[in-house]
Amino acid sequence: MDVKQSNKIFNGVHQVCSHASESTNCEMTFSIYLPENPDSSNLKTLIWLSGLTCTEENFRIKSGVQRIASELNMIIVSPDTSPRGEAVPDDEHYALGQGAGFYLDATASPWNKHFKMYSYITKDLLGVITNNFDIDTEKIGIFGHSMGGHGALSIAIKNPKLFKTVSAFSPICSPIKVGWGKNAFAAYLGDEISAWADYDSTELILNKGWSSDILVDQGLDDEFLDEYLKPELLSEACRQKGVNLELRQHDGYDHSYFFIASFIEDHLKWHDQRL
Amino acid sequence: MDVKQSNKIFNGVHQVCSHASESTNCEMTFSIYLPENPDSSNLKTLIWLSGLTCTEENFRIKSGVQRIASELNMIIVSPDTSPRGEAVPDDEHYALGQGAGFYLDATASPWNKHFKMYSYITKDLLGVITNNFDIDTEKIGIFGHSMGGHGALSIAIKNPKLFKTVSAFSPICSPIKVGWGKNAFAAYLGDEISAWADYDSTELILNKGWSSDILVDQGLDDEFLDEYLKPELLSEACRQKGVNLELRQHDGYDHSYFFIASFIEDHLKWHDQRL
Repeated sequence: MDVKQSNKIFNGVHQVCSHASESTNCEMTFSIYLPENPDSSNLKTLIWLSGLTCTEENFRIKSGVQRIASELNMIIVSPDTSPRGEAVPDDEHYALGQGAGFYLDATASPWNKHFKMYSYITKDLLGVITNNFDIDTEKIGIFGHSMGGHGALSIAIKNPKLFKTVSAFSPICSPIKVGWGKNAFAAYLGDEISAWADYDSTELILNKGWSSDILVDQGLDDEFLDEYLKPELLSEACRQKGVNLELRQHDGYDHSYFFIASFIEDHLKWHDQRL
Repeated sequence: MDVKQSNKIFNGVHQVCSHASESTNCEMTFSIYLPENPDSSNLKTLIWLSGLTCTEENFRIKSGVQRIASELNMIIVSPDTSPRGEAVPDDEHYALGQGAGFYLDATASPWNKHFKMYSYITKDLLGVITNNFDIDTEKIGIFGHSMGGHGALSIAIKNPKLFKTVSAFSPICSPIKVGWGKNAFAAYLGDEISAWADYDSTELILNKGWSSDILVDQGLDDEFLDEYLKPELLSEACRQKGVNLELRQHDGYDHSYFFIASFIEDHLKWHDQRL
């Protein structure tokens, strides 16, 4: 693992790291915030998954997460949203290819050589951070935004032993039912729709449930809310399965990082109380 | 004035506005954060001046200023760092031309048609915000970073009735004595060095003084500290003139917005107490 950049912020350091990933078959980049005393005991870690078009950078420079991570003495890890590079396939549409990995393992050509973001997050990323930093693997939570909210929910539901807590901002709650997801899943997974449900948070709740609670924040002026996000589907699935979903809806907020910054403190405190 | 963008954040809104400027002879852009109750009495305003290469955007998306502005009920205005557009001269070097206005009024060709950022800040910008928002002109402070720290200090010292308080992050304390400033001042103001001192914060302190105190934060791992910033020159001028400069030096912090974000709360509270 190489440390490519390191900046002191709120007494800790935010580092940008790169490493070779077996799953994605290319060099991957993530950032990690280490509070001032990262060797102390009882340190908790949150994995943040970003949305379409993002790299590891957006969350690092726009969310304001470091202030509260410093206060709570938490480690924050934010990976890139896809494999990258000239050898990696791409598409002209922002919701497919580089920057749009959808946190799944592609099975269809040409994507199946590199687009293995599900395995990357659950194996390679957890591996590299536990090998290089003082991570307590019993105290890891996951959260994310939009496509990353979908990623956080679907990955947590399938891996409750790896990720003890999960929350999301403006998640794509059921990608198999909306345009962004249908197009990407068809490309990455092929036409066999039965395979799609294994990466759909709403279907996963119906099939597997979730043993603790979930926090979701959603802005009501979000330009993607009605067509792409559909929190009502997740809400109904949680109701059916008796999962305690706290869906907070906020007047006037949109889909941007300005919304995330406004409520990031709540999410860190929510995870901190539960981990 | 046109509102080009508006995002809700921390219960207020951050707007991006454009307007025609007589001083710079082109369309100018600034952003303004309006807390939730901008019509209440006792509202204070801070003007933020950004550094080289920045637009109005950097401070808006990277500083985290909105959280504390919301809490203190302050208005925050951040203008662009220069005139812009195809008709506006530019230079290949990042420290001259567009993105590098140095908050002065150029007198030398070809810069003197548009590069009037001193007049823009003190006349056009104050005019457009007082005409369009509920600004108490008796309660305006100014602060900035790097080239913008130079701008804030030099503009305040020359206009103590307009700007009651001034602070800076990592300011270029004496542009006439360092590379960035010498090159830009020679281009903008010509070879008559006597004119340069009128835009040099250290010279202005020696010539005009400052009746209240000044807060400056400086990171000690700042890659530009020794060659370009030279806070010791400002410090010595303040000592000679009996100006109360609080120069805080911070181990491990660099020149980036990660440093600014770490201490922006202190600056807002410092101005709030004095305005």
